[in-house]
Amino acid sequence: MSEPTAHGPTDPAGPTGSAQPPVDLADEAAKLDAGDELAAKRDEFVLDDATVYLDGNSLGALPRAVPARLADVVAREWGELRIRSWSESGWWTAPERVGDRIAPLVGAAPGQLVVGDSTSVNVFKAVVAAVRMAREDAPGRHEVLVDEATFPTDGYIAESAARLTGATVRALPAAEMPAAFGPYTAVALVNHVDYRTGQLNDLPGTTAYAHHAGARVVWDLCHSAGALPVGLDAEQVDFAVGCTYKYLNGGPGSPAYLYVRQQLQDRFDSPLPGWNSHADPFAMAPGYVPADGAVRGRVGTPDILSLLALEEALTVWDGVDIAAVRAKSLALTDFFLRCVGAYVRGGRVRSVTPAAQRLRGSQISLRCSDAETVTAALIERGVIGDFRRPDVLRFGFTPLYTSFGDAERAARALGEVVG
Amino acid sequence: MSEPTAHGPTDPAGPTGSAQPPVDLADEAAKLDAGDELAAKRDEFVLDDATVYLDGNSLGALPRAVPARLADVVAREWGELRIRSWSESGWWTAPERVGDRIAPLVGAAPGQLVVGDSTSVNVFKAVVAAVRMAREDAPGRHEVLVDEATFPTDGYIAESAARLTGATVRALPAAEMPAAFGPYTAVALVNHVDYRTGQLNDLPGTTAYAHHAGARVVWDLCHSAGALPVGLDAEQVDFAVGCTYKYLNGGPGSPAYLYVRQQLQDRFDSPLPGWNSHADPFAMAPGYVPADGAVRGRVGTPDILSLLALEEALTVWDGVDIAAVRAKSLALTDFFLRCVGAYVRGGRVRSVTPAAQRLRGSQISLRCSDAETVTAALIERGVIGDFRRPDVLRFGFTPLYTSFGDAERAARALGEVVG
Repeated sequence: MSEPTAHGPTDPAGPTGSAQPPVDLADEAAKLDAGDELAAKRDEFVLDDATVYLDGNSLGALPRAVPARLADVVAREWGELRIRSWSESGWWTAPERVGDRIAPLVGAAPGQLVVGDSTSVNVFKAVVAAVRMAREDAPGRHEVLVDEATFPTDGYIAESAARLTGATVRALPAAEMPAAFGPYTAVALVNHVDYRTGQLNDLPGTTAYAHHAGARVVWDLCHSAGALPVGLDAEQVDFAVGCTYKYLNGGPGSPAYLYVRQQLQDRFDSPLPGWNSHADPFAMAPGYVPADGAVRGRVGTPDILSLLALEEALTVWDGVDIAAVRAKSLALTDFFLRCVGAYVRGGRVRSVTPAAQRLRGSQISLRCSDAETVTAALIERGVIGDFRRPDVLRFGFTPLYTSFGDAERAARALGEVVG
Repeated sequence: MSEPTAHGPTDPAGPTGSAQPPVDLADEAAKLDAGDELAAKRDEFVLDDATVYLDGNSLGALPRAVPARLADVVAREWGELRIRSWSESGWWTAPERVGDRIAPLVGAAPGQLVVGDSTSVNVFKAVVAAVRMAREDAPGRHEVLVDEATFPTDGYIAESAARLTGATVRALPAAEMPAAFGPYTAVALVNHVDYRTGQLNDLPGTTAYAHHAGARVVWDLCHSAGALPVGLDAEQVDFAVGCTYKYLNGGPGSPAYLYVRQQLQDRFDSPLPGWNSHADPFAMAPGYVPADGAVRGRVGTPDILSLLALEEALTVWDGVDIAAVRAKSLALTDFFLRCVGAYVRGGRVRSVTPAAQRLRGSQISLRCSDAETVTAALIERGVIGDFRRPDVLRFGFTPLYTSFGDAERAARALGEVVG
């Protein structure tokens, strides 16, 4: 393990690598787990002790409560009540109700999030609406800034949104955005945590600079929501989107969410004005009149099975303080980096995740020349991370169910694999 | 029961109404059910004999095979295999695989349908892409024709698509479209079956006239797919969309599909180029390169729980001939109209569904001044239809599970309710 991470302030192992006695780390992990106030949450998930699951940043583990709820939704709500469930089982209002369940996790008051569609579709709604709003504020605003390391779909969709609205797109590093905002900026689309490196981008600062320049921001929270405090309301974020199948454990491809700040909802001009966002959808009126509030972000008929599985999955957050989640996340990633420093031969892997806590999300990404082979060998040993081309090993730490023991075992297995 | 329906060629009851002896109709229903080659299909659905479910045109009944499959998807594929299921359980390729399950039901060869997103979102993809294509063919094509009785979301989305592409929208009756196509027409967006009246619009004729004029067509199959033959390939339809929760029984809000004719796929220029439609999605490349084939219609991460519930629901179509479905559908709606004519006092309701079979989908809509009250009273009697403002009673007939006995009971209850 070499620079920069191993030299971080929280890395006493330093560059000496596997010269450290491994047994201490296993002991330390046990102690850390014993003192972990979130440790009991792990029992609310389906996990097996043979596996160290460090891919919750791609697909969260199954919350134990989900199968029974989903079985009831299918057998009783759909099978027996059928059409009546749209009202009697609360299906119709699920998008905004589930949005309100997510709201406290991202620092939002109720009435600003709506769940439905994919992240990509929500990025489209947000960017088109933001460009329209920015142009209303000042007609010359034509530029969409996108962080150049963005998860690709955001960039592709931003290009499409720009093409359809006559705007232009400029990609630049997220850290350069504050200096790049100007009179031509319409909106910045930024990933809160970089999917590849795990770097945490500066939401408060970037948002403040954008607003100072009269521009709007759209934050993609896919890799941050559920892992760290977001503070959408406190920072006066304009729009945000995020998926629900990573740290929110909603299940494969569970629907995404859209946040539109309350003060902007009346001006939210959606490019996807489906009937579910109509002020009176069952009037079936030929003319479109948008609903007030978060509902305006809806489009078509909501996907109920996935939405209600997600609703149940979100019950694991009852009583959880997101600040405690963040504290554990940082402790886990710090500890993992120390273990890697101790177990892995120097120079074999190199962290691309910032050592500084304030620049770190809840994953550690290690560059490794044979990362694809190493990922496969780790999976054989029951350590599930993932691989991002061409040479990155990703390890996600989900504070609700990842233990310090998991971190130690994963690092130890990595040391064995890379030799 | 008065004109026009009761005077249809298949209505021996004629205008004499409840003067006919009801007992004959119950007997006749029993005989028709005994001779119904699709009757055994009913056992593949969860239905209770206390209820006459005539709302399958809104939400299809639960296929018996779905709960076990979904339970396995949740407990084993998500719960145990977790991230591995994207490859090992075939999650990644589900959108096109499930599309190929729907294909034969709409007369399409494999490789042209992809499942995902809502109908509204798919209308958006299709209309924007159609406008782009029509303009490439001839730059002056700027008009989007929409059938004026359209399900509202299609009209709202068409307006948005037109606004974003600099096109205009003109609403007109579907029957007037063939005469309206001209050198300025880019695309016609037409509902195959009108959601309110149950009228079947002329897909072959309208499509041929559109092509003769150099325009494109987008057909909305929500109220036809699974109830009657569609013939997308045979009629050289350009684009089609449809939901899967009505006659395809995919469950509440199950994902919709998009059909792009094979010969047009290379020119399909999606306004929602999410990463799932990239030629090499896991390259995570900054530049968008569209995939070939139906996959190009994908956007974000597919909603696996709903998609695989739908996949299982589609197994009820194994061995079913859609021509037999259409024959039974027409027999059911004919018979229901006869029963209504016999049981319901003349003038109390009036069919707005065409009497002519070739203009009829698989529902019967009756105008009734107190339709909302009547719908509620029918539901109390276990007859589930629905109500569309201001005065329409809708009764949907799903040939796979609706019996002639259901039709007779529903009409009898209607006669009792309307007095």
